[in-house]
Amino acid sequence: MTTRDECLARDARDPLGVLREEFVLTEEEIYLDGNSLGPVSRGTRRRVSEVLDHEWAQGLVRSWNTAKWMDAPLDLGDRIAPLIGARAGEVLVADTLTFLLAKIIGGALELRPERHVIITDAANFHSDLYIAAGMARLVGREIEVKPIDRNTLSAHLDEDVALVMLTHVDFRTGEMLDLAGITRSVHEASSLMLWDFAHSTGAVPLDVTGADVDFAAGCGYKYLNAGPGAPAFMYVNPRWQGVLRNPLPGWLGHARPFDFEPSYESAPGMRAYVTSSPSVIAVGALDGALEVFERTSMGAIREKSLALTDLFLELVEETLPGVFEVVTPREHEKRGSQVALRHPSGYGVIQALIERGVIGDFRAPDICRFGFAPLYLRYVDVYDAVRILADVMRHSTHLEEKYTVRLAVT
Amino acid sequence: MTTRDECLARDARDPLGVLREEFVLTEEEIYLDGNSLGPVSRGTRRRVSEVLDHEWAQGLVRSWNTAKWMDAPLDLGDRIAPLIGARAGEVLVADTLTFLLAKIIGGALELRPERHVIITDAANFHSDLYIAAGMARLVGREIEVKPIDRNTLSAHLDEDVALVMLTHVDFRTGEMLDLAGITRSVHEASSLMLWDFAHSTGAVPLDVTGADVDFAAGCGYKYLNAGPGAPAFMYVNPRWQGVLRNPLPGWLGHARPFDFEPSYESAPGMRAYVTSSPSVIAVGALDGALEVFERTSMGAIREKSLALTDLFLELVEETLPGVFEVVTPREHEKRGSQVALRHPSGYGVIQALIERGVIGDFRAPDICRFGFAPLYLRYVDVYDAVRILADVMRHSTHLEEKYTVRLAVT
Repeated sequence: MTTRDECLARDARDPLGVLREEFVLTEEEIYLDGNSLGPVSRGTRRRVSEVLDHEWAQGLVRSWNTAKWMDAPLDLGDRIAPLIGARAGEVLVADTLTFLLAKIIGGALELRPERHVIITDAANFHSDLYIAAGMARLVGREIEVKPIDRNTLSAHLDEDVALVMLTHVDFRTGEMLDLAGITRSVHEASSLMLWDFAHSTGAVPLDVTGADVDFAAGCGYKYLNAGPGAPAFMYVNPRWQGVLRNPLPGWLGHARPFDFEPSYESAPGMRAYVTSSPSVIAVGALDGALEVFERTSMGAIREKSLALTDLFLELVEETLPGVFEVVTPREHEKRGSQVALRHPSGYGVIQALIERGVIGDFRAPDICRFGFAPLYLRYVDVYDAVRILADVMRHSTHLEEKYTVRLAVT
Repeated sequence: MTTRDECLARDARDPLGVLREEFVLTEEEIYLDGNSLGPVSRGTRRRVSEVLDHEWAQGLVRSWNTAKWMDAPLDLGDRIAPLIGARAGEVLVADTLTFLLAKIIGGALELRPERHVIITDAANFHSDLYIAAGMARLVGREIEVKPIDRNTLSAHLDEDVALVMLTHVDFRTGEMLDLAGITRSVHEASSLMLWDFAHSTGAVPLDVTGADVDFAAGCGYKYLNAGPGAPAFMYVNPRWQGVLRNPLPGWLGHARPFDFEPSYESAPGMRAYVTSSPSVIAVGALDGALEVFERTSMGAIREKSLALTDLFLELVEETLPGVFEVVTPREHEKRGSQVALRHPSGYGVIQALIERGVIGDFRAPDICRFGFAPLYLRYVDVYDAVRILADVMRHSTHLEEKYTVRLAVT
């Protein structure tokens, strides 16, 4: 079994090890919940202060031009593009993930007016299910949202399917889906493919160009570390730009916003999907958070991510054989950057861990969820987390009785 | 004519004078554009640092509960409520103004399924016109958006009108509409009334309860000083809460968000209108910005606002008789907190003023717009601004040739 000293040695030669200094983290805790909310980076801290104290405080209204606030949603989109395999001019930062899904779903249904089905994963994150149902109801014509077992997708693809909407990494199990393969089979049915990258962006390499994805959206607050409620991003394949209509138009997406024309004419390119300006302070936080990604590559991040989750799985199984059901797939190509362990007292396990300084989270009914963010986590953190987990499982025999109230942590 | 010394004397006895210290402002400039973007307050500076350095950096994901991030949209709504004459539980902070208008329009159309017209003001702000048209197109059934001359509203009210959507203070002219009177006549036609308070909130007293308004929405970045792209707010009359459906649902508006149920069931009260969490950092900026309002009253703010705009109008007309057409109404009950002056070289006038440290803005084709925010503007600022304006008009005879390129300042 891997020893603590071996973990320290791996940290010492880890090319990403130096990046941990870029985050505000305490040595008293091991943070395995960056898949829910990433920590503050020094880049974020600095950029938020710049926006507040210089751009806003001194530039005031002029900063819409002089500090390029007006272009930030596109400029930041261009910086997210390499993280998902997109090119400049294909990604926009705006709104929140749910609103961006609403825009894409609303626009996509117009592109397949003769089709009336949206297929999604019954295990999809609930906000995705709710907004799909909401848009289906809103658009007036008869639209059916079909939540299916994603493993049976091919059986559901037919000439009725307008859109398939899947989350690339399952928020509960951490299973990663086959981006290119699924997109290809959806296209074979002449349906459109929308990917939710909430649990993928900044954690696993993505190639929307290679996979010929139609649309994608992701959030900023998980592995991108841009803060709670951070602006989200959307990708539109260039073949749909100028074709996919923004169903929720606003003046900043107008071709000539300052001409104040009475009727709407869409701006070209990704600017068409701007409804309003996102919070410029929140955009500053994202701007700063992206800096650390520019000091490494998604390949290096993925390599360390797999090493961290492999190590966690190895240590859990050797230290606590048979105690947990490992829900996350073993195969690297099916694993995101988290590990999910099933246990009937899962809620109590997580609460006991948090009391001991290991921050994971719980997903009903019985999933203990541990996120591994390679930018700031060390091999020794994994070792220590498993040691504390083993201690919790050995000494806390009454987890179920001790922790009966569910905390509402996202 | 009022002298500079008289202005200084008025400032010395101004009960709101001390509040200027709460803002980050330079003595080198006179900021008359708070109706576009308010300045940074010390409360905002402090709260953003607290959110970043304590709540997020140290609390991490736990702060959704421990720092009450989950409740902030409702808690801040309750603090905005007194500014618009609403009660606790009637206002929500969320999203941006355009998205909130979209939610209200989409929901309101369902409440009048037999009616097919939305009436709005042809002079309304363009984003309001665009989102009304966008929602009309999206909802499927035949909806006509009628932009009218607002002075002819009563002639347009009939049994076809589902919703009337007006902006309470005109963004160009500064004209303030009759909140209670118009709402009453809309209700007499059994239509629903949606008010846009973008240019009203924090500048003029509002009484949604007294006027029996159905729905309202406003932004945070103008007179509320919450920063560029700040979260917006919406008001729903208690008789419509639980009845008006959120057409863009998200998991945080679910009755039991952490039960992750496959289908959507709306939370009670204003939480129903939450789609996603707004940026928590941006919410912190708004939180801090509201502190200064809690040291005064909308009555005191209105009294000073009228005194400032009266003084500006008096000084402009005595110093520059006949040079400008005064577009803003003279009657107090029809005036918001800005003054609009028409001049054929308006764009050049504003550019020359900005070069001299007086920050106003221009609205095509010929409106010079000056906002007067009573929390930080002094009577002597008004005096000095008019003196500089007079100087610009006397010495810059070629304003049109000098300033030919329009800057895209909002």
